[in-house]
Amino acid sequence: MSSSSPPTSNGGGGDHEDEWVWNEIKAEARRDAESEPALASYLYSTIISHSSLTRSLSFHLGNKLCSSTLLSTLLYDLFLNTFSSDHSLLSATVADLRAARQRDPACISFAHCLLNYKGFLAIQAHRVAHRLWALNRKPIALALHSRIADVFAVDIHPAARVGKGILLDHATGVVIGETAVIGNNVSILHHVTLGGTGKVGGDRHPKIGDGVLIGAGATVLGNVKIGEGAKVGAGSLVMIDVPPWTTAVGNPARLVGGTEKPKVHDDVPGETMDHTSFIYVI
Amino acid sequence: MSSSSPPTSNGGGGDHEDEWVWNEIKAEARRDAESEPALASYLYSTIISHSSLTRSLSFHLGNKLCSSTLLSTLLYDLFLNTFSSDHSLLSATVADLRAARQRDPACISFAHCLLNYKGFLAIQAHRVAHRLWALNRKPIALALHSRIADVFAVDIHPAARVGKGILLDHATGVVIGETAVIGNNVSILHHVTLGGTGKVGGDRHPKIGDGVLIGAGATVLGNVKIGEGAKVGAGSLVMIDVPPWTTAVGNPARLVGGTEKPKVHDDVPGETMDHTSFIYVI
Amino acid sequence: MSSSSPPTSNGGGGDHEDEWVWNEIKAEARRDAESEPALASYLYSTIISHSSLTRSLSFHLGNKLCSSTLLSTLLYDLFLNTFSSDHSLLSATVADLRAARQRDPACISFAHCLLNYKGFLAIQAHRVAHRLWALNRKPIALALHSRIADVFAVDIHPAARVGKGILLDHATGVVIGETAVIGNNVSILHHVTLGGTGKVGGDRHPKIGDGVLIGAGATVLGNVKIGEGAKVGAGSLVMIDVPPWTTAVGNPARLVGGTEKPKVHDDVPGETMDHTSFIYVI
Amino acid sequence: MSSSSPPTSNGGGGDHEDEWVWNEIKAEARRDAESEPALASYLYSTIISHSSLTRSLSFHLGNKLCSSTLLSTLLYDLFLNTFSSDHSLLSATVADLRAARQRDPACISFAHCLLNYKGFLAIQAHRVAHRLWALNRKPIALALHSRIADVFAVDIHPAARVGKGILLDHATGVVIGETAVIGNNVSILHHVTLGGTGKVGGDRHPKIGDGVLIGAGATVLGNVKIGEGAKVGAGSLVMIDVPPWTTAVGNPARLVGGTEKPKVHDDVPGETMDHTSFIYVI
Amino acid sequence: MSSSSPPTSNGGGGDHEDEWVWNEIKAEARRDAESEPALASYLYSTIISHSSLTRSLSFHLGNKLCSSTLLSTLLYDLFLNTFSSDHSLLSATVADLRAARQRDPACISFAHCLLNYKGFLAIQAHRVAHRLWALNRKPIALALHSRIADVFAVDIHPAARVGKGILLDHATGVVIGETAVIGNNVSILHHVTLGGTGKVGGDRHPKIGDGVLIGAGATVLGNVKIGEGAKVGAGSLVMIDVPPWTTAVGNPARLVGGTEKPKVHDDVPGETMDHTSFIYVI
Amino acid sequence: MSSSSPPTSNGGGGDHEDEWVWNEIKAEARRDAESEPALASYLYSTIISHSSLTRSLSFHLGNKLCSSTLLSTLLYDLFLNTFSSDHSLLSATVADLRAARQRDPACISFAHCLLNYKGFLAIQAHRVAHRLWALNRKPIALALHSRIADVFAVDIHPAARVGKGILLDHATGVVIGETAVIGNNVSILHHVTLGGTGKVGGDRHPKIGDGVLIGAGATVLGNVKIGEGAKVGAGSLVMIDVPPWTTAVGNPARLVGGTEKPKVHDDVPGETMDHTSFIYVI
Repeated sequence: MSSSSPPTSNGGGGDHEDEWVWNEIKAEARRDAESEPALASYLYSTIISHSSLTRSLSFHLGNKLCSSTLLSTLLYDLFLNTFSSDHSLLSATVADLRAARQRDPACISFAHCLLNYKGFLAIQAHRVAHRLWALNRKPIALALHSRIADVFAVDIHPAARVGKGILLDHATGVVIGETAVIGNNVSILHHVTLGGTGKVGGDRHPKIGDGVLIGAGATVLGNVKIGEGAKVGAGSLVMIDVPPWTTAVGNPARLVGGTEKPKVHDDVPGETMDHTSFIYVI
Repeated sequence: MSSSSPPTSNGGGGDHEDEWVWNEIKAEARRDAESEPALASYLYSTIISHSSLTRSLSFHLGNKLCSSTLLSTLLYDLFLNTFSSDHSLLSATVADLRAARQRDPACISFAHCLLNYKGFLAIQAHRVAHRLWALNRKPIALALHSRIADVFAVDIHPAARVGKGILLDHATGVVIGETAVIGNNVSILHHVTLGGTGKVGGDRHPKIGDGVLIGAGATVLGNVKIGEGAKVGAGSLVMIDVPPWTTAVGNPARLVGGTEKPKVHDDVPGETMDHTSFIYVI
Repeated sequence: MSSSSPPTSNGGGGDHEDEWVWNEIKAEARRDAESEPALASYLYSTIISHSSLTRSLSFHLGNKLCSSTLLSTLLYDLFLNTFSSDHSLLSATVADLRAARQRDPACISFAHCLLNYKGFLAIQAHRVAHRLWALNRKPIALALHSRIADVFAVDIHPAARVGKGILLDHATGVVIGETAVIGNNVSILHHVTLGGTGKVGGDRHPKIGDGVLIGAGATVLGNVKIGEGAKVGAGSLVMIDVPPWTTAVGNPARLVGGTEKPKVHDDVPGETMDHTSFIYVI
Repeated sequence: MSSSSPPTSNGGGGDHEDEWVWNEIKAEARRDAESEPALASYLYSTIISHSSLTRSLSFHLGNKLCSSTLLSTLLYDLFLNTFSSDHSLLSATVADLRAARQRDPACISFAHCLLNYKGFLAIQAHRVAHRLWALNRKPIALALHSRIADVFAVDIHPAARVGKGILLDHATGVVIGETAVIGNNVSILHHVTLGGTGKVGGDRHPKIGDGVLIGAGATVLGNVKIGEGAKVGAGSLVMIDVPPWTTAVGNPARLVGGTEKPKVHDDVPGETMDHTSFIYVI
Repeated sequence: MSSSSPPTSNGGGGDHEDEWVWNEIKAEARRDAESEPALASYLYSTIISHSSLTRSLSFHLGNKLCSSTLLSTLLYDLFLNTFSSDHSLLSATVADLRAARQRDPACISFAHCLLNYKGFLAIQAHRVAHRLWALNRKPIALALHSRIADVFAVDIHPAARVGKGILLDHATGVVIGETAVIGNNVSILHHVTLGGTGKVGGDRHPKIGDGVLIGAGATVLGNVKIGEGAKVGAGSLVMIDVPPWTTAVGNPARLVGGTEKPKVHDDVPGETMDHTSFIYVI
Repeated sequence: MSSSSPPTSNGGGGDHEDEWVWNEIKAEARRDAESEPALASYLYSTIISHSSLTRSLSFHLGNKLCSSTLLSTLLYDLFLNTFSSDHSLLSATVADLRAARQRDPACISFAHCLLNYKGFLAIQAHRVAHRLWALNRKPIALALHSRIADVFAVDIHPAARVGKGILLDHATGVVIGETAVIGNNVSILHHVTLGGTGKVGGDRHPKIGDGVLIGAGATVLGNVKIGEGAKVGAGSLVMIDVPPWTTAVGNPARLVGGTEKPKVHDDVPGETMDHTSFIYVI
């Protein structure tokens, strides 16, 4: 996996890393276009013809999320303008691309993730919706939310706050509520719900710490805290706080691991994740 | 939430209420168009340009559910004709809109629900499919069923009977079988299955009473009866009858609450729902 | 159900049976077109106008899975060429059609399945993606995988090996990992995950024997073996081997049935399935 | 050509004739669908599935004239509402269909004309634009005008008044100005201009009498009068009045025929037109 | 027509005028949207939602000229980038808008011209194709040329040089060859050909002076010079030089007017054009 | 222009030449894709990804001529099947491509002609319509005719017989009637009409000999014979026979040249055409 790292990587990443990843993506797309002429048109229109990752991603999302009443040109404009107005969005995108390469063994290239991962695309579109929401442009943020839910079957309320280095693996059926907060380097499998309980309105959804891993089909309800590095087993129902570096499994969930601090799972390129067997699903 | 009620509401609703809600929707859409020019085209084409809620909804569903082999004009016609031939459909639509406003704290306006809630749209399209099924127009009912399942990831057999005041919240992954019956004022979260067991053919799916609440990811199997006002916990697997005003949780489910009769949850505008914490997910 | 069998059926099927099923499909479509003029255009374009099941299916999949950057004509070509180059694909298609007719009481005709069953369509498209993957045409296989996941919310890694006579019922949310293997005559309900655990890369997904039945929402994780004729209950979490003709239920799953050998569930046309009540969901 | 006449035709036509023509069209379309399965989908969606000629025509025009910013559903609605509000539009449509059958030897059926004649379709859409103009809905009339000019390359100002029984043969490049008036039973070939001169604004375009025939590429300029039954030669440039039953040819045009009164060319079903050889082009 | 002039107009125009015209267009579109809700969606998406004339025009052209193999997003980008890289393009656009308002009595507003005039739109797209040609990006210039010819039936070779203040009235069928040069403030009616003769390659097309007027259907062939302020009659065939302020008419053309110098026809807002009657066609 | 000839060309052409031209086209498209990334997607989808000229052309025509009611996949099938069933169609295509390269100085490559020349594309689609007509599949031939007339503004009756080596230059507005016959190596400019006169039905349209050249806007009417190598001047109106190697000009046309036999204008690669100056327009 050394090929997925820039030659002189420093922890902070930044423009240099963004540029390196974009060059990798274009090189991958060119190789694929060379080997598979039937796909070349797709690869040129989505990647190779673009001058930047921001443009490529805006183009791809505009064409993915458009409908007969929300034109691709309008959405392309919206994505391009939003990404251009806040450069932290691009660095989050790059962190998500690296997360997929490092944590998902089925991810064979950055280009593969950029084009084909519905979880990746849903998160990028969500960040734009979130920024529009923060600017009090709620109607358009909700229209975008609706298109993401229709097209990717991923339902993230535009108000939800999401960190970077996120892997939404498979992604179908993920539901994340309005007051949820997700840290950095979090991995969430398909059918995961971060839902609310009881209170109408107010702060009612989970807070997910950095480096957390939530297995397929897990349901986390209420304003509970899932601590840094914690793990939630597939199919679990969690309505309690989970301490850092602890594992919760079962319906309802009980705590089964804990206290030991593993390595943060994306700071070492090429690491082998040591997931408890019943949690992770790829 | 007083703004979501007509000035002189009577329990029965009717044409007066339908008209009031439609006027609210148009006013909301106009406010949104004013504040967000990028969305104005969408709001005019889907809402403001139409002379009635029936036309607006038929137009929106026609454009949402069309494909290259099922044209939007054909579907628009089908929806318009069906809604026009049975006025009870419109009053069910209005009851569903009010249900979303009253029960979902994330629903900020009727227009938001009408345009963006895939659960709401899936239910409206289902009612049309159901009516076509009842008229023995099964092939077209099933084609519509298929489009709803593709576009919204909501799979309701056209034969299933569904009441009014329904909230399908988030909605992705909901599956409702052929002989299921759902009462009025029911709330169903995403990933809920009302499925069959054993018998091939025949009456084999759940019967859901009025005012029932079914949490995210719950699976209810077989011709069981979920009594009026009962609640089913998120992630539960229910294969037994649940008495009225009782709560079922767990996999397999056990009964945990019961007997106390709460207020019917939508007859008091602005009520605060008192949901058991592990059930409700928004 | 005798109408769904060719007059002189032999166990092996083959070209004779393929032709019989295709003739049935066209006859069904013609009857539906006759009775429902509003659907006739759809039925002619998808079925009646085609000279073979291969062409009809390639046309329908091309129009279902296309996007603005992956044209229907390109996909149609890809499907047609792949189906033509490997005739075993067509016999698998026919076996799947028969599986739907025999095992799903809601399936009223072959044409209904061909046109409307997202699980059926996802499996057919997957087989093409799998063949492209086997030919080392990975980028286009993954692009197809992505379209299937977007359009049908069914996520089957192109490397996964899938037998014939498969019923993916309802299908929304099904996720099947890279090294999974599925035998013949398997029935899988919606929201089922055949996922990996722990190991990054390598053989890490379930192996599903012939005639297995996996209930809605079940999660099977790791390189475990689900033996021939076994059953997995709805909502179960399985991380252990399940012996042949045995039933696993619960979260985590325990074994509850076993040893008795039922009839293989599709070799007797018109059989009544004797499913344990908590497993099957239609 | 007796097959193109109702069994008991009276000169006035009316609802009886409209119904007869619509039944003919459906019968023709059914015959064509029977003989050509590849076209059946098109014939069902455009003709056979519709309950009236008004609906069929509105559907066809909506799908022909739509664009990504003017949706087919919107145009369909506009056509349907306008045709429904003024029944004289339908009788003009029927007269135009009969004109094509009687005067154009290349017209093999009413259905052929309804579906494929761009001149016929442009005239029908123009009548709707004209009515909207008359209702002072100028912006939408001009938007429609623009779509007709783009799609059919026929440019008729919405204010122009056009009679019934019109044949625009081939039609490409026809331009008809704002204050032009065209009588009944007029035949106009392709590339014909009815244009203005000199005056800015005011009544500045030709007035075409009943039964006039204008050859291909002819240009008629200014507020001149082309008398009843007159003929204009192909390629002529006419800036003078042409008396009734007279022929004008040349660039600039001179009068060459005249005074003899032929039969009005559509009151005798099946008549053989006796056109001067250098005028008519089909 | 004073309403079509900025309050403090100076001959040179420039940014101030561009801004004034854009504000007029938006005000017109808002008035039209107010009065015609059915058109509001179209007007918002094409005009009102945009922040500049450049964006509005690029959006409109992208949606007009796109095809299934040349996406609207790609074309939008191409137009936007080209207009942004050369500000003289926008001032030519504004001059063309003013030309339509001043010279075409059927033009009721700037917005009408911007949205609906195929001649205006063809010229704007041509200027972009011409710039791409000048940058030696010939293949994309020719692809654009082809789309303009398909969509608007206007065929201008990308190498042709075209001034500003151009009115292509009706525009269908206009053909302008590779080495043609057109001055400023020229009016060209539909079906006009500026074609080549004899020589293969080389400078072989007409040179049209400032303020020239060419009537409908006129054909001008060869490297001839049509002098400043000259007029060419409708239907003429011109293969000779036409001196300034002279009129050519007939097939073949002869010179009939001359020497008197009229006012340049667009420097006085609101002027009444004094066209010789047989030339002009609107 | 030697680059447009195969190294070992023999007069007859045949498969060898077809293959050579297709290889040239792919090489041109690859060069263009290399130099212009924005166009690469278009070039790959239309040319580079295809295995033969027949497939590339069928794909391109299917996408050009499709509509919402005539799907691209259906048309692609129709073109592919028809081209495959009659190999003479392909050699006519190749002859037309060579005609454009040799006779039109604005044609810079075969790929340019294949993708962008509406006259070339209209002729190829016409040949398919003609073959369908000959097979008595009239309704679909006429539907195709209608699409060609809408999309390219070229109106060729499907019954008209057209040779090979045809150049329809610019092409907009060309109208060719039902009983017209066109020989080989004919060049026809835009706005040319080959029309009928007088007789209703029967053989009533022009017969055009080999190597004829018809200038822009010329109108030829009636069952007249234009002899081999003859020329018709731009804007002429011809209603008489024109002897071989003779030129007709004027309205009405008179004969002005004659008897001298020029070289057949496409048998010498790179020839310089010696057209009488008033005829030819490019």
